[in-house]
Amino acid sequence: MKAGIIGATGYAGAELVRLLAGHPKIDGLELSSVSYEGDHIEDIYLNFFKKVSGELKKAEAVIEAADVVFSSLPHGVGEVFAKACVECGKPFIDLSADFRFGSDEATFSTWYGKSYQYPELHGLSVYGLPELNRQLLKAKNGRVIVGNPGCYPTAATLGAMPALAKGLAGTGTIIVDAASGITGGGREPIRAYHFPECADAMSPYKVGCHRHTPEIAHNFAVAAGRAVPLIFTPHLAPMNRGILATIYIPLADVQPVFDLSRPPSKETIAKTVEIHALYTEFYKNEPFTRVLPLGSVAVTNRVRQSNFCDISIHIDQTGSTLIAISAIDNMVKGSAGQAIQNMNIVCGFAEDAGLSAIPALF
Amino acid sequence: MKAGIIGATGYAGAELVRLLAGHPKIDGLELSSVSYEGDHIEDIYLNFFKKVSGELKKAEAVIEAADVVFSSLPHGVGEVFAKACVECGKPFIDLSADFRFGSDEATFSTWYGKSYQYPELHGLSVYGLPELNRQLLKAKNGRVIVGNPGCYPTAATLGAMPALAKGLAGTGTIIVDAASGITGGGREPIRAYHFPECADAMSPYKVGCHRHTPEIAHNFAVAAGRAVPLIFTPHLAPMNRGILATIYIPLADVQPVFDLSRPPSKETIAKTVEIHALYTEFYKNEPFTRVLPLGSVAVTNRVRQSNFCDISIHIDQTGSTLIAISAIDNMVKGSAGQAIQNMNIVCGFAEDAGLSAIPALF
Amino acid sequence: MKAGIIGATGYAGAELVRLLAGHPKIDGLELSSVSYEGDHIEDIYLNFFKKVSGELKKAEAVIEAADVVFSSLPHGVGEVFAKACVECGKPFIDLSADFRFGSDEATFSTWYGKSYQYPELHGLSVYGLPELNRQLLKAKNGRVIVGNPGCYPTAATLGAMPALAKGLAGTGTIIVDAASGITGGGREPIRAYHFPECADAMSPYKVGCHRHTPEIAHNFAVAAGRAVPLIFTPHLAPMNRGILATIYIPLADVQPVFDLSRPPSKETIAKTVEIHALYTEFYKNEPFTRVLPLGSVAVTNRVRQSNFCDISIHIDQTGSTLIAISAIDNMVKGSAGQAIQNMNIVCGFAEDAGLSAIPALF
Amino acid sequence: MKAGIIGATGYAGAELVRLLAGHPKIDGLELSSVSYEGDHIEDIYLNFFKKVSGELKKAEAVIEAADVVFSSLPHGVGEVFAKACVECGKPFIDLSADFRFGSDEATFSTWYGKSYQYPELHGLSVYGLPELNRQLLKAKNGRVIVGNPGCYPTAATLGAMPALAKGLAGTGTIIVDAASGITGGGREPIRAYHFPECADAMSPYKVGCHRHTPEIAHNFAVAAGRAVPLIFTPHLAPMNRGILATIYIPLADVQPVFDLSRPPSKETIAKTVEIHALYTEFYKNEPFTRVLPLGSVAVTNRVRQSNFCDISIHIDQTGSTLIAISAIDNMVKGSAGQAIQNMNIVCGFAEDAGLSAIPALF
Repeated sequence: MKAGIIGATGYAGAELVRLLAGHPKIDGLELSSVSYEGDHIEDIYLNFFKKVSGELKKAEAVIEAADVVFSSLPHGVGEVFAKACVECGKPFIDLSADFRFGSDEATFSTWYGKSYQYPELHGLSVYGLPELNRQLLKAKNGRVIVGNPGCYPTAATLGAMPALAKGLAGTGTIIVDAASGITGGGREPIRAYHFPECADAMSPYKVGCHRHTPEIAHNFAVAAGRAVPLIFTPHLAPMNRGILATIYIPLADVQPVFDLSRPPSKETIAKTVEIHALYTEFYKNEPFTRVLPLGSVAVTNRVRQSNFCDISIHIDQTGSTLIAISAIDNMVKGSAGQAIQNMNIVCGFAEDAGLSAIPALF
Repeated sequence: MKAGIIGATGYAGAELVRLLAGHPKIDGLELSSVSYEGDHIEDIYLNFFKKVSGELKKAEAVIEAADVVFSSLPHGVGEVFAKACVECGKPFIDLSADFRFGSDEATFSTWYGKSYQYPELHGLSVYGLPELNRQLLKAKNGRVIVGNPGCYPTAATLGAMPALAKGLAGTGTIIVDAASGITGGGREPIRAYHFPECADAMSPYKVGCHRHTPEIAHNFAVAAGRAVPLIFTPHLAPMNRGILATIYIPLADVQPVFDLSRPPSKETIAKTVEIHALYTEFYKNEPFTRVLPLGSVAVTNRVRQSNFCDISIHIDQTGSTLIAISAIDNMVKGSAGQAIQNMNIVCGFAEDAGLSAIPALF
Repeated sequence: MKAGIIGATGYAGAELVRLLAGHPKIDGLELSSVSYEGDHIEDIYLNFFKKVSGELKKAEAVIEAADVVFSSLPHGVGEVFAKACVECGKPFIDLSADFRFGSDEATFSTWYGKSYQYPELHGLSVYGLPELNRQLLKAKNGRVIVGNPGCYPTAATLGAMPALAKGLAGTGTIIVDAASGITGGGREPIRAYHFPECADAMSPYKVGCHRHTPEIAHNFAVAAGRAVPLIFTPHLAPMNRGILATIYIPLADVQPVFDLSRPPSKETIAKTVEIHALYTEFYKNEPFTRVLPLGSVAVTNRVRQSNFCDISIHIDQTGSTLIAISAIDNMVKGSAGQAIQNMNIVCGFAEDAGLSAIPALF
Repeated sequence: MKAGIIGATGYAGAELVRLLAGHPKIDGLELSSVSYEGDHIEDIYLNFFKKVSGELKKAEAVIEAADVVFSSLPHGVGEVFAKACVECGKPFIDLSADFRFGSDEATFSTWYGKSYQYPELHGLSVYGLPELNRQLLKAKNGRVIVGNPGCYPTAATLGAMPALAKGLAGTGTIIVDAASGITGGGREPIRAYHFPECADAMSPYKVGCHRHTPEIAHNFAVAAGRAVPLIFTPHLAPMNRGILATIYIPLADVQPVFDLSRPPSKETIAKTVEIHALYTEFYKNEPFTRVLPLGSVAVTNRVRQSNFCDISIHIDQTGSTLIAISAIDNMVKGSAGQAIQNMNIVCGFAEDAGLSAIPALF
């Protein structure tokens, strides 16, 4: 099969190239770029020299030649290519936000400032978080638009989902406090990602109003079967790859006593063991979700370059709140890797085909 | 005046040396070290070569020769030197946790695993957060033990104090999610601070149970005049200096509606302006606390190498929660700088003497 | 086949584990560790959780069970295991310096402070730089001790070899100025690799007297067919992976005029083209050595996580000196990857088996 | 006195602001910016908030109001302001390359692609390396144009000058292999300084042809009293501040034997001691040049945030070559700090006024 990548020269596009070039079921790549049309990908990414070669064409040519199409264009410009793929029966996996909101155009418009160009397409789309929607993805028999999740929503949803689905969460607000590596900002040099401005610095941004908030909230609602109040704050951390999400979930059915002169109660310790077992059971058949042993913490450099999402389970000192921590590589499980996982599901390949890299600690 | 530093070869000690060597009221340093007794500080810290010179002596000799004594020893070993200073009427400023808990020995013992050796000393001590206890510090007329605050408690308390003192906070749990640079772990090489293990990584640690929790909680209670439920989670970020604290404070007197299909309400925007004005007013006479203009965010690299605490004010999308973000240099306002600020107050110097460095963005 | 790794818990050992676990011809790993005997590798390297599992045994048990044995022990302790492998006819690939000097015990002793325990073994060993000794490695038919090259010698030799072998180099001293990522120092936390001491710093070390000097000099002599005067200076750079070697090779047969008021001469430009062509031709059949297009520079992040050695060709402004720059990932081509390449050659596998990872720019 | 800064919003300009704001002889700053005219400096550099305030004006207004004028404009646009300062008798200290070449317009034109607009001005200029030209600077009695040296030339010249001036260097080519922090590239975001492209990477650039080459060569010639063949290669290192220059100086009057089977000879060791003493003597009255104790190495993080140049002395294993290593903070001694040092000399202030910061190791 041939895979096509529309918008191949951005960071997500280049990560797709890197991962798909080693995919056992893909024997050719078709690449497009508006900015670099006519150039070769290995001239732009010299790391590909002698490993990947390909002329950058027009998007239309990519769709024509490929059997499955990935799109890593900016938000708001890819619907026309989705339409073309639907019309010729090819799976379209979109890494932008365009197909993450299904028929909820109102929320998309509020946060992304654009309307749907082809509203009917969105009824065909599936939100591509396999751990949530694997059956929906399979059911499409390959005729599908996949809205590949955002990086923060992937980490946040996987970290909170078992608690929400199993009724552990109370009705209080869930807080997702997260940090991302700088590659999350893409390839275009702007001052916020200029080395001297972001090295040796922690920078919050879009505090309480980042546009991944409604996407996370929607996932939480699906998992919980009810609306879940949510606050989400992202930060930039001085590293290349990784997202760490620290998720505070007020527990239902606890009677916490705020008394820091005492160690955690037996009940709290028992509850931690119980929730850890529940998470482990919940994800036991998932190929990419690792619930870490109790006592460990999820850390970004243990999932680096892999499609894993690591999750660690903690309860605060006084027993009131589950603190679930999740770590992903933002460019893999948070972007290109998950897109390939979606392709594998949609196309009937082994779900981990091309995604078997072992995390490199350093 | 001569300043003495007991435990001068750790990172906090070395930072005291660096800052005190340029202090206009200090004309000599007396330094001690157990590990390096007899060596010279500039041989251990070659950055001091030709700028600071001093033989490392015994602690007793330092107390004898100095007019004011700083102690940057590990927790639990400094009381004997505090006693000696009290007996000869010299201010003792302790950078360890030993004198942060006053007469609350129970909490100290629970979290630090040690008892007080000289309980009577703790009645003489003042918790050295000038923004909270300036009058107490002054009232001692120089005969005082100062328990210099922890780095996280400094950032957390300064970020939350106005909201707590002015009754903005509701009764819900406050969450302090914070990240620290690696210098916070001190000078001893251990695996967690080994470059290949922490570069390019975000690592939570002591999740929900770090021993700065009771110190923060105590400060919050003092500010609010009531117990304040608290969760605190620290993270290591791959940078040398800085603490960023993202503080979630549920607001009293709000009726939030969780509806992410709408932008923030007029009430929320007005409330943000109001709280920003309140913070600005609260800190208007403070020399080191900067409430940033609305729309800005506190970032660690804007306070680097300075004694400033920057604070930015935000309310989440749905209006339920104040998100106050504070940034300090963990080695300055979070440690040695604040200790010098305390000395300045205790000794009657200008409060910013020796602390006038302008932050270096890079 | 089963592969054994003696000393599996150091960084080179762990990198062998990571790469061999994905090797198509290896279906089992046998691991040993003195420090962690009885523990499991995935408990020490949590990044391996659910991907690699294995109890850490005694070295003897590893040799017994494996078909090919890698040793990543400290210098000077592995000969006994080499002997055991030779006696049972198993290839022994040693990542320490013990078998890099063949019968030249004098040089080994001068620089490593140890004598050979079993001198006769060293006559059986081959220096495992495939680009230099591929035929020797093959000729052993699997009964061989391989002395896997040092990281700096790999980068330096591959960068200089074509010039030396083809007589481009004059008789002047060659200078190799190189920088390495911190992983080169291994897993043990010491102050030089403590994050706060090496982040944001360039540190030369062992200036003019690093013990990779005789290894590089030996390789240069083999390539040139004569002794080649050499100076080698290593530096630590604040990054995890990578070695960059900037190699200054005085050219034979040039008449440089030192006149910086003029641009490079036509002769210099033509010579650059000629040398670039020569390098390209020299390495045209090598799977892992990429001579970059003229005008490009070798950079460490374009070979990251791969077994490539990138080389760029430059001549200084006045035409006197070839500046060849080579970049490798110190943990792959500079260590574990090259060891696997050697195994592939020795065992008759495809030379790039298990080593096909495409470099990740970030 | 009032200091003016033309081009105050670039990194060198901002560093001038930071340092001059704490200068004991400067009681006001006048700032200009073309890009931000009418804005305030503290809105652009929020780190200055509450410490430095100033409206950004036109350059002409700055010259009018200031007693001494710094210019940190791009190369090739500042002569007109130099002329204006000369006409009204105000010292003009230029951080660009425009006044580094004196009357040698040919070399300037070859490397910077521009002609002199006012050739007569260049006869009035002094190359502002105080260790070389202090008397010339003083002799001008304040009526002077100072060409502030480049960052690499400062490090290279200070490292090599004693050897050249005292006849230690032979006639062979000197090689300067240097690495710089990313701030050296300035404030404008371009891809080479985009965090994901330069973090965790060593990148050579302008190999053998960087335009600091003629500036270094000129300084070497002045110091040696003869032309000195030179090769200079810069690298980008993943750090914010610092230049490390590793300088290979072939020694005169040595008979090296290239034999790595032996340790360094007694003669080599004695020669090292002798050269170290010579360097120490040479710089004994210099306020900012520290010749480190034998056995130490110059490292960038020991001069960070200071105006020091650290120098360490080594001879290669075989005795042929002096390896002098120098470290500076590229933004201080390599730029703004040295400019202030020049102002201090020209204006008759203490040479270290405003420059007494002690290096911060971290």
